[in-house]
Amino acid sequence: MEIKGKSLKELEQISQDIRDRIIDVVSRKGGHFSSTLGAVELTIGMHYIFDSNSEPFIFDVSHQCYPHKLITDRWEEFETIRQFGGLCGFTKPNEHKADYFVAGHSSTSISLAVGAAKAIKLKGEKKVPVVMIGDGSMSAGMVYEALNELGDLKLPVVIILNDNEMSIAKPIGAISKYLSKLLAGKFYQGFKSKVDKFIKNNMPEGTTYLAKRVEGSLKLITPGILFEEMGIDYIGPIDGHDIEEIIETLQIAKDMGKPVIVHARTIKGKGYKIAEGHHEHWHGVGPFNVEDGEFIKKSSQKSATAVFSDALLNLAKKHENVVGITAAMPSGTGMDKLISEFPNRFWDVAIAEQHAVTSMAAMAKEGFKPFVTIYSTFLQRGFDQIIHDVCIMALPVVFTMDRAGIVGNDGETHQGAFDINFLRFIPNMILFAPRDNETLELALDFAYTLNKPCAIRYPRGSFKELEYQASPFELGKSELLKSGTSNKLFVAYGNGVSKAIDVEKLHNEDIAILDLRFVKPLDIDTLINLSTKYNSWYIFSDSQKQAGVASAILEILNQENIKNISIKSFEYEDSFIEHGDTNKVEESLGLLPSQLVKQVIK
Amino acid sequence: MEIKGKSLKELEQISQDIRDRIIDVVSRKGGHFSSTLGAVELTIGMHYIFDSNSEPFIFDVSHQCYPHKLITDRWEEFETIRQFGGLCGFTKPNEHKADYFVAGHSSTSISLAVGAAKAIKLKGEKKVPVVMIGDGSMSAGMVYEALNELGDLKLPVVIILNDNEMSIAKPIGAISKYLSKLLAGKFYQGFKSKVDKFIKNNMPEGTTYLAKRVEGSLKLITPGILFEEMGIDYIGPIDGHDIEEIIETLQIAKDMGKPVIVHARTIKGKGYKIAEGHHEHWHGVGPFNVEDGEFIKKSSQKSATAVFSDALLNLAKKHENVVGITAAMPSGTGMDKLISEFPNRFWDVAIAEQHAVTSMAAMAKEGFKPFVTIYSTFLQRGFDQIIHDVCIMALPVVFTMDRAGIVGNDGETHQGAFDINFLRFIPNMILFAPRDNETLELALDFAYTLNKPCAIRYPRGSFKELEYQASPFELGKSELLKSGTSNKLFVAYGNGVSKAIDVEKLHNEDIAILDLRFVKPLDIDTLINLSTKYNSWYIFSDSQKQAGVASAILEILNQENIKNISIKSFEYEDSFIEHGDTNKVEESLGLLPSQLVKQVIK
Repeated sequence: MEIKGKSLKELEQISQDIRDRIIDVVSRKGGHFSSTLGAVELTIGMHYIFDSNSEPFIFDVSHQCYPHKLITDRWEEFETIRQFGGLCGFTKPNEHKADYFVAGHSSTSISLAVGAAKAIKLKGEKKVPVVMIGDGSMSAGMVYEALNELGDLKLPVVIILNDNEMSIAKPIGAISKYLSKLLAGKFYQGFKSKVDKFIKNNMPEGTTYLAKRVEGSLKLITPGILFEEMGIDYIGPIDGHDIEEIIETLQIAKDMGKPVIVHARTIKGKGYKIAEGHHEHWHGVGPFNVEDGEFIKKSSQKSATAVFSDALLNLAKKHENVVGITAAMPSGTGMDKLISEFPNRFWDVAIAEQHAVTSMAAMAKEGFKPFVTIYSTFLQRGFDQIIHDVCIMALPVVFTMDRAGIVGNDGETHQGAFDINFLRFIPNMILFAPRDNETLELALDFAYTLNKPCAIRYPRGSFKELEYQASPFELGKSELLKSGTSNKLFVAYGNGVSKAIDVEKLHNEDIAILDLRFVKPLDIDTLINLSTKYNSWYIFSDSQKQAGVASAILEILNQENIKNISIKSFEYEDSFIEHGDTNKVEESLGLLPSQLVKQVIK
Repeated sequence: MEIKGKSLKELEQISQDIRDRIIDVVSRKGGHFSSTLGAVELTIGMHYIFDSNSEPFIFDVSHQCYPHKLITDRWEEFETIRQFGGLCGFTKPNEHKADYFVAGHSSTSISLAVGAAKAIKLKGEKKVPVVMIGDGSMSAGMVYEALNELGDLKLPVVIILNDNEMSIAKPIGAISKYLSKLLAGKFYQGFKSKVDKFIKNNMPEGTTYLAKRVEGSLKLITPGILFEEMGIDYIGPIDGHDIEEIIETLQIAKDMGKPVIVHARTIKGKGYKIAEGHHEHWHGVGPFNVEDGEFIKKSSQKSATAVFSDALLNLAKKHENVVGITAAMPSGTGMDKLISEFPNRFWDVAIAEQHAVTSMAAMAKEGFKPFVTIYSTFLQRGFDQIIHDVCIMALPVVFTMDRAGIVGNDGETHQGAFDINFLRFIPNMILFAPRDNETLELALDFAYTLNKPCAIRYPRGSFKELEYQASPFELGKSELLKSGTSNKLFVAYGNGVSKAIDVEKLHNEDIAILDLRFVKPLDIDTLINLSTKYNSWYIFSDSQKQAGVASAILEILNQENIKNISIKSFEYEDSFIEHGDTNKVEESLGLLPSQLVKQVIK
C-alpha cells in the first residue's frame, strides 16, 4: 500500500480502513488487539517518512505490528494471522522483507537499531533506523544498555516511544511514573526549538560559552531530561493519533542526524470504544462479538494458571513467609490475585526478569520463600541470575514456569521449549512437574517444604483430567501409574503424562506408564528396577529433545551400565517451532497421540 | 576488628594498616588490587555506620571486598586469598557471615538490596541494606531494573557509588560520561540541603504548592538529576578517601529512610603510587615487586587470548566485514588490539552482554560478520538474546568464548563450565573448539566462512603445544589423531584433547584419540565407524557433565541403536567448582592426567 505522498485526508481514510480490517479479523480470529489499534497512525507516519524497503523498521515485541503488515502487502493474508501456516503475529523477516527482525521478547529494539546504525555508517549509507517501542518495554535492562551506547556514539536513530501509560498490565516502576509525568506536562518542545533558533540567530560568533550556558539552562526545563542526560534528544509528547503532527515530528527527528526519542501519547484500543483505555484483557484476545465486545468463550475448563493461582494463594494464606514476583504478566501468570490480596508480599516488577530473580534470591536468604512466576520463555532472561544469585548459594527460590511446552499462536519466540534444557545442568537445582491440576497443587506444597532452588513447569491452557490418584511429592521419587504386560514402558514428564496415557489407550498392548515427576534428581532406583522388566522405553515430554528428558535418562542408564534399553524420545526435534493452534502445530510435528501410537507400533 | 566508636585518628591508622596488609599479601600472592585499595575508607565508613552482623553489606562484583574481609576477622587468613582451600577473592557467606551474598558477576547488588529491604520491611526491622557499587557496574541493565523498582517503592537503601571513573577498562557509554560530569561539577549538595531547610522554616503552613515549586526548581540544579528522576535521592560527590566526610554522609544517608545514592570519588590503587589511576593491568594482578611494581612473570607462553587476538586481527585485515564486540573486558579478551586498530569496527560496550549480543545480531543481518567475544561465564547474561535475536533467524554471529573451563583463582562465579550445556540445544547453533594455538586460528578461519550462528570455546591461560598437525575445519567433521590397538577410545573436545593425549601417554596401552572438534553437529559417521572398533569410550572436555559432551554422544549412540559402548565421562560433576590454582582444583576433582589414567586402567 502506498503511503508516501498521500494527502492527509487520504491517510486518515487509510488509518480508518486499517482499523476496520484489524477489528474485523481479530474479532473473528483472535490476536493482539488494543496495542496494535493504538499504533495505527504512528505506523502510517513511519511509512510516510521512512522506507521499509530499505530502512530498518524495528518494532519492539512487535505485537503492535498489524498495521505495518497491512501496509506492506499483506491485506488479504491478514485473514490468517497467527494461524498455522498463516501470517505470524509478530514481525518475521522470512514472511516479508519489510519485517526487519524477529521480535516477540521485549526491549530488544534499541539494541537492534544500534547495530543497524553501526552497519549503515560503515557502509556509508544515508538510511536511518526507526524504532517503535511501547512504554511497557522501557523497564527492561536491555533498553538501558542500548541507550547507554547510543547516547555515547550519537548514531542517527529515531525511537518512537508509543506511550499508552500501560504496557500489558498497569504502569509499574519509577520509569513509568516518570513517563506519566512527561505526558501530564506541557509541550515544551516548541518553546525549546524557538529558543534554540534565537540562540543561533542572536549570539555573535565566538560566544560559544554564553550559548552553551543558555542551552545548558534550557536543558533543565526540557521534560525528557532523563533521556537527555543519557545523550539522547527528546521530542514530545506529541499526539500519537494526529497524523499531521506525527509526520511533521518524524521528519524533524529524522533530519536531526542523531539519536532522538519521539514521545507519542496514544490510546490503547483506539477506534474500538469498548476496548479503549486500560483494560489488560483487551491486550491479546480470542474471538469476540464486535457489537458488544463479549468474548466467544471456547473453554470452560480451569486453566493450569488458575489452578496455580488458587493453590499459591492458599499456601500464602497458610504461611506468611511465602512471597512472590512476576515480570509484567500479572494476569497471565495468575499472580494478580495474590498481588491484590497481599500487596506487601507479591509484586509485579514490570519487564525485569533479571531483577526479579536476584531480588527474590535476597528474600530467600532472609528466610522467605519466594515464588518467581515467569513464563518459561521469558525466564531465559534470568538465566545467569538463576545460576549466579540463586543456585551457587542453593537458596530456596521456587521458579513456577507457566507456558511450558508449545504455546500455540504466539509461535517460535514464545514456545516454552527450553526450560528443562537450560536448568537441568545447574548444580543444586531441582526440577519437577505436575501432570494435572491435583498434582500441580501437590507440587506447590512440596516446593514449599524444599530447602533448595527448584523449578516447576506447567503448560498453557488446561491440564487434561486424569483417572489416576496422586500421592504427595517426595524428592526424586517417580510414580508408576500402571504396569504393563508388554516390554514397553512410557516414561512421561509433566504434561507428557496425559499424552502417554492417551497413546497407551490407542495401543493394543498393555503398556506400563511411569510419571517421572522429577527430571532432577532422577529416580534412579525405580529406573533400574523398570529396566529389568521393560526394555523399550518411550519418552513423553513437552521439551527440546537435545539435552532434555531422554538425554537425562540415557546418562543414568550409561552410568548404571544398563545396555539393553532402547529409548525413543517424543520430545521436540532440533528446530524452532512455528505458530498456530497447538493441535495443528503438534500434528505438524507428528506429536498427536494418533500419530505417536503408530511410531510405538513401528 | 572494631570500627565503631573509634576516633578519626584511629580510623586513619586502621586504613593505613589495611592498605599495608593488602599491598603486602597481594604483591606476594596476586589478586584484585587497585579497586580494593580504592575502597578502604569507604569500607571503614560502612562498618562505622552500619552493622555487618545484622545489616546486609552488599558488595557489587565484590572484587573490592578485601578491606571488608580484613575488618571482619580474616586478617591472618587473608594470607590465603584466592588460593585453593583459602579465602575466596569475592564475598562468600559460607566463608563468613559478614559476607552477605556471593558476587562475582557485576551489577546484582541493587537487586539484592531491594530484596533485602522488602524482607526487612516485612519483618518490621529497622536495618538498612548498604551497597557498594563501582561506576563500571552501572552500565548493566540489571542496575536499571533494580533502580526502577527501588525508586518506585522508596525502600530505605544506601547505595555507595564508588566512582573511580573506570571500572576495569576505560569509562564507556553515556552513563559513564554522565558520572564524570557529576564528578567534575561543584558540590551542590550542601547548598541544596540549606535551601531545603530554608523552605521548611520559612514557608507558612499550607503553602505546599509554593514549597513544591521551589523544591521543583531546586531539583533542576541537583547534579544527580538522572537518579532523582528515577526516584532515588542523590548526595555527592564526596571525597571517598576522607573518612570524616564519608561517615558524616553515610549517617545522613542512613537516616533519610529512603533510597539514596552517595556518590564518592575515589582513586584506584590509592596508597600504592605506581598503581594509582587508570591502569587496567593493576585491576587484577599476579605477584609483583613492591619496590618497583615489576610483575614477577610466570609464563612466557603465548596465551590463548593472545593467539585469538592476533588471529582475529588478521581476519579483520583480510575481510572488511569482520566486526566485533566485547563487554568491558577489552584486554582480558584481547579485543583491545582490534579496537585500537579498527575503532569503527570493534567496540567495547561496557558491562552490557545483552545489548552486545543483540546489537551484533543486527549487524549480521546487515551483512557483517560479528565476533562477540565474552568470557564463557559472562555470556550467560546474553542467553535469551542468543536464542531470540541470533538463533531464531540463524544469523551468522560468532561467539568467541574465552575462559572456558576452570578459570582458577576467581572460582565458582567465574568458571566457564556451562557454555556447551546452555548452547547445545539451541536450534541453528553450531559448536566447535580448537585444541591448541594452530587450531584456534583455523577455527576462526572456519567461523568466518560459516553462514550460521556458532560458538568457539578456549581456555584461560595457554594451550599446550601438541605434536599433531591440524587440517582445516570442516562442518561436523572430527579428526582422528591416532588409532589404537586397545578397545579404548578417547573422545576429546577443545582443551580436553591435550589432556587425552597426556593420559594416553601415561597409559601402557595404545589408545585411539579422537578430536571431536564439533559437539554440534556431531560427526555421526565417524562415531558409528569407531564404535565398531572400540567399545570403551572416555570423554575429555572442560565442561559440565550433565547435558554435556558425553550426553551428546549418548544421544547419538541411542539414535543409531548402538548398544555395545560403555562411556565414561571426565567432565565436571554436578556441583559448583571452588577457587584456587587450576592444577590444585583439578587435582581436587580427580581430573589431573595422573589421576585420570588410574580411572582408565580401572
